Amino acid sequence: MRTMATWTTSATLALRADATTRVADIDARAKPGFHGRKSDGKQLLGERGEVLAALQEKLYAGGRSGDHRSILLVLQGMDTAGKGGMVRHVIGMVDPQGVSHTAFGVPTDEEKRHPFLWRIEKALPAAGQIGVFDRSHYEDVLVVRVHDLVPQEVWEQRYDEINEFEKRVVESGTTIVKVAMFVSLDEQKARLAERLEREDKYWKYNPADVTERSYWPKYQEAYQAVLDRTDTELAPWYVVPCDRKWFAHLAVTELLIDALEKFDLSWPPPDFDVEVEKKRLAQA
Amino acid sequence: MRTMATWTTSATLALRADATTRVADIDARAKPGFHGRKSDGKQLLGERGEVLAALQEKLYAGGRSGDHRSILLVLQGMDTAGKGGMVRHVIGMVDPQGVSHTAFGVPTDEEKRHPFLWRIEKALPAAGQIGVFDRSHYEDVLVVRVHDLVPQEVWEQRYDEINEFEKRVVESGTTIVKVAMFVSLDEQKARLAERLEREDKYWKYNPADVTERSYWPKYQEAYQAVLDRTDTELAPWYVVPCDRKWFAHLAVTELLIDALEKFDLSWPPPDFDVEVEKKRLAQA
Repeated sequence: MRTMATWTTSATLALRADATTRVADIDARAKPGFHGRKSDGKQLLGERGEVLAALQEKLYAGGRSGDHRSILLVLQGMDTAGKGGMVRHVIGMVDPQGVSHTAFGVPTDEEKRHPFLWRIEKALPAAGQIGVFDRSHYEDVLVVRVHDLVPQEVWEQRYDEINEFEKRVVESGTTIVKVAMFVSLDEQKARLAERLEREDKYWKYNPADVTERSYWPKYQEAYQAVLDRTDTELAPWYVVPCDRKWFAHLAVTELLIDALEKFDLSWPPPDFDVEVEKKRLAQA
Repeated sequence: MRTMATWTTSATLALRADATTRVADIDARAKPGFHGRKSDGKQLLGERGEVLAALQEKLYAGGRSGDHRSILLVLQGMDTAGKGGMVRHVIGMVDPQGVSHTAFGVPTDEEKRHPFLWRIEKALPAAGQIGVFDRSHYEDVLVVRVHDLVPQEVWEQRYDEINEFEKRVVESGTTIVKVAMFVSLDEQKARLAERLEREDKYWKYNPADVTERSYWPKYQEAYQAVLDRTDTELAPWYVVPCDRKWFAHLAVTELLIDALEKFDLSWPPPDFDVEVEKKRLAQA
C-alpha cells in the first residue's frame, strides 16, 4: 500500500504571499506544499470537505448563539481562473444555510453613485456565516487601474482605503482569507477554447475575455501592486496556482479549515436549564 | 437482484394538496407514492441529486443569458419538521452560486414598519436562481393567527393578499413550490429530547418550542386554513410527511426536479459568432 500523499508544508505557509512574491514568476501549474497526484488530491478533498463542513456547522451554531465571528473568503483572479468552480466544489461541501455568496459584476448605476466599498460593506457575512466574494473590492484596483476607469489619484488612494476597511472588518470578528487565483496564459486559452467547443459552455464565453488577454502584462502589474500594498498581517493574501483545478480546490479547502481551526470553536453551551427543560418536555 | 424501489405515483401527484386534505388526518410517517425503504430512498436521493444539479446549472446558465425564470421553494412547517436539514441535504446538492437562501425570523423593527410582504419581496430569487425560504410570508397567517399578534380582520385579509402576490410572482416567471412539512407530535418530542441530550444540539433547542406544543390544535387549524385558502393552480401546496427525514428529502428533490423539467430548459445559444471567436482566440 502506498502511503497517502499529503501536504509537506501546510497550505497556509506554502501559499502565503510575501515581499518576495513576483506575480510574473508564478508557476500556475505548481502545487506548492503538496506532494501528490490528482487522484490523491481528489480523495483528500472529500475527506477534508467533511472536516470543513463539521467546522462550519460549529461556526454557524456559534453565530446563532451570540458569537459574532465569521469568515470572508475573497476570490480574485483572471478570467477562467476558476472562481465559479471554486464556489461549486469547495463551498458546495458545506451547509448552504451558513454561506452568503456574492458575485460582484460591473457596478450598477446605483452602486456607481456610492463609494466603491459601499456594495462590499453591504455584502459582508453575518455572524456565523462564511461569506464568499466572487470578485471583490479588488476589482477597483485591478480592472479599474488597467483600463483607467478612474484617475490614477483615485485608485492610488484605494489601497490604503482597502487596508483600513479590512482592518475594521477583521477587528469586528471576521477572518478574511484573500485568495489570488493565477492561471497561465496557455491554460486560459485552452479553457476559453473549450467554451467555444461545447454547447453547454457557450454561456460562459465572453468575447471581451479575449480582448482582456492583450492586457495581461498590465494585469500582472496590477496584481503585483495588490500583493505589495494590501498583503497585511491582519488580512493576508494567499497565492493559489490554478492551472490544476483539483489543487486549487484542495488548497482553498485547507485555507478555510485553517482559518476555522484558529477560531478554536466549541459548541455553544445551553442558555437554559437542561434538566428543567427535560421535565417540561416530558409533560408537554 | 431486487428491483430498485421507486415512486409508484410521481411525488408531484402523490403529495399535491387538494380540497380533501385534512391536516388533522395527515400521517407524518407516511411516504405517499414511494414504494421503498430508507436504504432505497438514500440511494435514489444521490442519483436524483445529480439530475437536480444538472437542471439547476441549466437554469443558472439561462439566468445569465436573459432567461428571466427562477424557482422559489417555500419551506413551511412546525418546529423540528426539518426545514434546516432540508436545505442542508437537498439544496446542498446544487451549486451554491445558483441558490439564494433566506431564513425568516421574528420580524425586525424595520420589517415591522412595512407591510408583511415587504421583506418577502426583497428576498425573491433573481433570474436563474433557486430561492429557498426557510419560513416565509405564511408565518403571517400561522404564528400570527395562533397567537393573535394582529387583529383577525388583518390576518383574514392576508390570504387574498398572498394569493395576489404569488400570482404576480408566478406571472413574472418564478415557479413557486410550496412545501408544508408535517411532523407528528411524538416525533417532535423525540427530536426536541435529542437536542437536550447532545452537546452539539443544545444550540438548536429553544424552550419556546415546548410552549408551542400546547398550541398544536390551533396550528393545525391555521395550517388547514392555509391549504384551504392559498392552494392555487398557479402556486400549489405540497404536503410532505416529515417523520422520515429521508423520505422528505427525496420528495422535495423530486418536486424541484419536476418544476425544473417543466421549464424545458436548453443551453443558451451563443450570442457571438463561434467561428469568428475561434479565430480571435487563436491569435490572442
